[in-house]
Amino acid sequence: MKLLSFSEGGRESWGAVAGEIVVDLGKALPHYPTLADFIASTDYIRRDEIVSAVKPGPKLSDVKFLPVIPRPEKIICVVRNYLDHHNEALASGLKREITEYPPIFLRVWRSQVGHNEPIIRPKVSDHLDWEGEMAVVIGKAGRHISQADAWSHVAGYSIFNDVSVRDWQRHAQQIASGKNFVGTGPCGPWLVTPDDIGDPAKLRIETRVNGAVMQSSDTSMLIFPIPRLVEYCSTIFDLVPGDVIATGTPAGVGFARKPQIFLKPGDIVEVEIEEIGVLRNHVIDE
Amino acid sequence: MKLLSFSEGGRESWGAVAGEIVVDLGKALPHYPTLADFIASTDYIRRDEIVSAVKPGPKLSDVKFLPVIPRPEKIICVVRNYLDHHNEALASGLKREITEYPPIFLRVWRSQVGHNEPIIRPKVSDHLDWEGEMAVVIGKAGRHISQADAWSHVAGYSIFNDVSVRDWQRHAQQIASGKNFVGTGPCGPWLVTPDDIGDPAKLRIETRVNGAVMQSSDTSMLIFPIPRLVEYCSTIFDLVPGDVIATGTPAGVGFARKPQIFLKPGDIVEVEIEEIGVLRNHVIDE
Repeated sequence: MKLLSFSEGGRESWGAVAGEIVVDLGKALPHYPTLADFIASTDYIRRDEIVSAVKPGPKLSDVKFLPVIPRPEKIICVVRNYLDHHNEALASGLKREITEYPPIFLRVWRSQVGHNEPIIRPKVSDHLDWEGEMAVVIGKAGRHISQADAWSHVAGYSIFNDVSVRDWQRHAQQIASGKNFVGTGPCGPWLVTPDDIGDPAKLRIETRVNGAVMQSSDTSMLIFPIPRLVEYCSTIFDLVPGDVIATGTPAGVGFARKPQIFLKPGDIVEVEIEEIGVLRNHVIDE
Repeated sequence: MKLLSFSEGGRESWGAVAGEIVVDLGKALPHYPTLADFIASTDYIRRDEIVSAVKPGPKLSDVKFLPVIPRPEKIICVVRNYLDHHNEALASGLKREITEYPPIFLRVWRSQVGHNEPIIRPKVSDHLDWEGEMAVVIGKAGRHISQADAWSHVAGYSIFNDVSVRDWQRHAQQIASGKNFVGTGPCGPWLVTPDDIGDPAKLRIETRVNGAVMQSSDTSMLIFPIPRLVEYCSTIFDLVPGDVIATGTPAGVGFARKPQIFLKPGDIVEVEIEEIGVLRNHVIDE
């Protein structure tokens, strides 16, 4: 099942996607104001039954996509989690090593944008770069989650474009500043539930800019796979339903290219992950 | 005026402190469910008049302190913002330089604890360290706030203890992991409004562990003063009412001492800032 957050006529809602139609579950189930509330509930396992009882509508083409989880408590992003990207970062001069711990940073939810909404190139920089990533959405709260239990805490999968303001990312070596600009965190178009994904560790991932393939890899290449990420993050944080873990990006980002390529107004960035879909955004100037 | 968030008999509220008494404004003004809602409102400038119209109670000694803003949208922490602390970090082997940009990272609100509540030493580390800091609470939303306008966006001042799990902080050079453990972010005891603070850039700050002075400085020593922090952060983020900026810690942290000192169960940590108060917490094991 595909689940999304959307707005229609200014009203925020969430629902399921059935072909070209949205099933407006936010309207049908007002006791779950957000998708995060629903995935946190015991009704989440009854989702097929629930969706089939609700009259379909509106059309998918008539709604505005919101970030899959519009206001997650936390967005945990993993850094250099594909070996080829780690190596291209080193080749461009970064001094880092792979340890037994996944490097992480945090993003604020306000940096997110929905599918089809603009990525905003800030006034202060023209070093705007893409990072296509698979996102894991947490469905069940937990702390100290073992790798064996990790899958039971996952509500589903989505796509994140961890758009980065590269020069600001390098301010003083803590990268949060370049990773949190307003309008730089596309997430969507929807969440796909685990029963509709074969093996989340065997999905092709591709990022295209104006149709040209820039990143092409496979989620089997994660240095720290999903169970390890859930284990590590839950050692630090109380994970809660709706939390998003962006699992890192493969090689092919703009700053590591020769010559470098950065995003400019009018560019179309698409991140496609097999069995999930395509997250498409255009770039505008602030 | 001192404003706090508290709970009493399991009910969460917020109010003003009048000597040994709390004025329960959360009960009197239910249209402002949280202190952040109140400071975002136009009633905030009428606070003296509003508080004087509400019957005082309960006793301060009968409430449980919550973090000043229990669920801020963001907690932005500034790294190495006192020269003496920057230098002690370098002396302990860290390779960093001061640039024109304040280094920042993010904390999740769930890592916070209130005044008098325990700091939790996690199972996975005994490298638990203190960092006494002045906290700035944002009162008015804004983006691209100039240094000249910065003060008008500040609702007040509080105290933050940016308790750090040092070995986890050093995982892979992004420090968020060691700065977000559950139970490591004391903030309180209250917010003091600007009219009750002489000059926020001239306040003595002191951290004591079991009564021994560990950090002793003055907020005039900030490398990046408050207006610059508000300007920098608002270039990246939409600042919103209730956002917290922890302004960095002076020299005297445990990891930089010879021999090193780390917090252990039973320790009492107090951070005192002139004209604000004392934030006191004890340490327990997870």
